Amino acid sequence: MTETIIREAKPEDMVAVHDLIHELAVYEKAGEQHINTAEQLVKDGFGADKVFDCIVAELNEKVVGFALFYTSYSTWKGKCLYLEDFLVTEKLRGKGIGKKLFDEVLEIAKSRDVGRFEWQVLDWNEPALNFYKKYDATLDGEWINGKIEFK
Amino acid sequence: MTETIIREAKPEDMVAVHDLIHELAVYEKAGEQHINTAEQLVKDGFGADKVFDCIVAELNEKVVGFALFYTSYSTWKGKCLYLEDFLVTEKLRGKGIGKKLFDEVLEIAKSRDVGRFEWQVLDWNEPALNFYKKYDATLDGEWINGKIEFK
Repeated sequence: MTETIIREAKPEDMVAVHDLIHELAVYEKAGEQHINTAEQLVKDGFGADKVFDCIVAELNEKVVGFALFYTSYSTWKGKCLYLEDFLVTEKLRGKGIGKKLFDEVLEIAKSRDVGRFEWQVLDWNEPALNFYKKYDATLDGEWINGKIEFK
Repeated sequence: MTETIIREAKPEDMVAVHDLIHELAVYEKAGEQHINTAEQLVKDGFGADKVFDCIVAELNEKVVGFALFYTSYSTWKGKCLYLEDFLVTEKLRGKGIGKKLFDEVLEIAKSRDVGRFEWQVLDWNEPALNFYKKYDATLDGEWINGKIEFK
């Protein structure tokens, strides 16, 4: 039986990660808002000026999931780690691959001595909410997201 | 009449900014969660490894408000600007100082060519919500904040 490998993403993984991001955008009913490209992900995630980190889940030499995160900041807690996106391709869910990815990001957060590991989840995404409830996580719906879109 | 000046924060402003952060934490009924220090703000906001930017409102040589923000990342839109905290001291509200700060961050966001300018607001904070409604902003309560606290 083949085991899923969790590893740091490489620039050449970004085409597969881009496809997975699009899969998640469509699931969140917002496919048309996904305008970022694989080339831009390479620019933004690698090199001296990189702004995010990414890990991938690989099965049979294919990227089947990813987690993308960056350093955020809390005026209360200092440096934090924000998990921006996190997905396992639909066909391979329920096999613990998501847990492996999430656990790895959690370990990275601990190793960086951040004040908090944080993320957001849509309030109707029951599978995701049930997943997070298995952790000692605070889930807080008291906040409203404000945004002004430029792109 | 003295005019409020909006300017980039200096390391020596962080004591005043720290006091304002505490004022906001107390207003948000979470004063005890504010563990960050002025010294840490200096380390995290200045120098080569800085993780946030800060602007302040100065009136009569006193810091009376601030806005603290950092580069966030959207898998859909690329680099974004996240406004983490934003406050005018209570006694000086209703004089347009908050609008000056917010407008300055909005201009910085535009100048950085980010995909989105974003923030969060507590759903019971009516004055803040009314403020944001004057802008062409999307306010979306469909999200739940997940977090695992380490500090």
